[in-house]
Amino acid sequence: MTVIEDIYPSRVDDRSRLIDRVDPVVYRDPGRQGPFSAAELATYEENGFFVKPALFGPNEVTELNDALATWLSSPEISAREETIVEPGSGAVRSIFRVHELHPLFSRLSRDRRLLGAARQILGSDTYVHQSRVNLKPGFSGKEFYWHSDFETWHVEDGMPRMRALSVSLALTENFPFNGPLMLIPGSHRSYVVCLGATPQDHYKQSLRKQDYGVPDHHSLRTLTDRGGIEAPTGPAGTAVFFDCNTMHGSNGNITPYPRSNVFFVYNSIENRLQDPFCGLKPRPEYIATRQRVETLQPLQQ
Amino acid sequence: MTVIEDIYPSRVDDRSRLIDRVDPVVYRDPGRQGPFSAAELATYEENGFFVKPALFGPNEVTELNDALATWLSSPEISAREETIVEPGSGAVRSIFRVHELHPLFSRLSRDRRLLGAARQILGSDTYVHQSRVNLKPGFSGKEFYWHSDFETWHVEDGMPRMRALSVSLALTENFPFNGPLMLIPGSHRSYVVCLGATPQDHYKQSLRKQDYGVPDHHSLRTLTDRGGIEAPTGPAGTAVFFDCNTMHGSNGNITPYPRSNVFFVYNSIENRLQDPFCGLKPRPEYIATRQRVETLQPLQQ
Repeated sequence: MTVIEDIYPSRVDDRSRLIDRVDPVVYRDPGRQGPFSAAELATYEENGFFVKPALFGPNEVTELNDALATWLSSPEISAREETIVEPGSGAVRSIFRVHELHPLFSRLSRDRRLLGAARQILGSDTYVHQSRVNLKPGFSGKEFYWHSDFETWHVEDGMPRMRALSVSLALTENFPFNGPLMLIPGSHRSYVVCLGATPQDHYKQSLRKQDYGVPDHHSLRTLTDRGGIEAPTGPAGTAVFFDCNTMHGSNGNITPYPRSNVFFVYNSIENRLQDPFCGLKPRPEYIATRQRVETLQPLQQ
Repeated sequence: MTVIEDIYPSRVDDRSRLIDRVDPVVYRDPGRQGPFSAAELATYEENGFFVKPALFGPNEVTELNDALATWLSSPEISAREETIVEPGSGAVRSIFRVHELHPLFSRLSRDRRLLGAARQILGSDTYVHQSRVNLKPGFSGKEFYWHSDFETWHVEDGMPRMRALSVSLALTENFPFNGPLMLIPGSHRSYVVCLGATPQDHYKQSLRKQDYGVPDHHSLRTLTDRGGIEAPTGPAGTAVFFDCNTMHGSNGNITPYPRSNVFFVYNSIENRLQDPFCGLKPRPEYIATRQRVETLQPLQQ
């Protein structure tokens, strides 16, 4: 019998604590070119994220928003299992697997500015572990509490190591006050072991509100005492690249300004999913790519 | 029979709309001195608010916070009707009437930097219409939706005209991301007539969550299209003076940084409360000073 040691245990007992990351942040491969400069890579490595203001131009953003509006108005969209709607209003809050469901978002997932950076940082071929569009409405946008994506992907999806990253591309302007992404610089170097166990079919709840895999107050204070909080602002088209273990969240949004973005999670092909470390059945394919792994090649500009 | 015309009707029918303010913002009295310069008064008049960064020094803030901590730990505080606690945890969220209940906050309400500015802007003697300490915790601070204070004070308390102002003195640092006060510049020049009628004993609910006197989305968009949103940040000791009709609110706060402040509402002695315009019984004295009107004189420094 082969026992795979779990070097990032979480939700296994009643103790909450910080442990050190053992994996690299930037997997340097001297032969590999990419859009990030050496200085940008160093900043990403230090902070656990890097912001590229206006990486996509106004015309490109308009094209994405127009396509999204058309897609959202189609009858098929609310019937899909990949579509998450607000319980009361039925309004669409998220659509998953956009890199396979829509040709424009499929192209976007292979854009050299995004995929090229992911391949450069992860030092290998990559595939999309998860993709989604998030729509945070004006007036009533809900908060999303602090979390490390990796904690969930490891425990619930069986992602073995920290060799994945997210890119969030803003489709609307990010103000300080419309619930922008907040990140804790340097938090990616510590892994917050969370309390408790994972219930069956946790994902059905956790897409709306997290109850498990929630970092404790003491750990969060330790991380913010060390690194503070940054909430990047910028025009639509701004991209935030962040490590899979960077602690992040967002406040609610009572302003009239909605906030929407598209997320791609790139995982190294050498870090494919195993059985979930929580011992439960895997989450659906549209939330965590397990079978349909397709190595992506950057599009030529 | 004397019929007092209601020039600021609200919650009277099923129409929501913006009407023009008919009252001055700054009631200039050439013989009256005050801490605001002519330029500062002009900015206040234009925007409906003015920020004085670090108006109180670190030692003064420490004295206030120490006194507050001692007060909060006393058994009498949670028994008072002036104390609003969180339903679940029992944690104190607000204490009203602090200008009468605590000697240090009483002194503060007569400090020339606050009261002197109020007398200067309102152009008359003034009294405290309402005072309170607000404690917005870290990790779970709730949002406070957009509102004009005057709309409530007019409808529920019978404040006749727009001749009152609030000052919010920060007892903790205001970051962009810990749910700071947000204000809409220029919104004080329009009055948002709200939908619906006022239920009996509305205040018991509205201190936690507003359901009546809520401005509609269209009006809020109109106001932010004209003026945008400002969310002043600054160290503890920063004061924000804002007109009674300036539209304001705050987002929730998932960060570890709590936000607390002390509010004083100064009303002109020439603008004392009448019967509530909604026709219901008045709210309690600790929320809206009706009987215990005491004209305040600024303390000598």
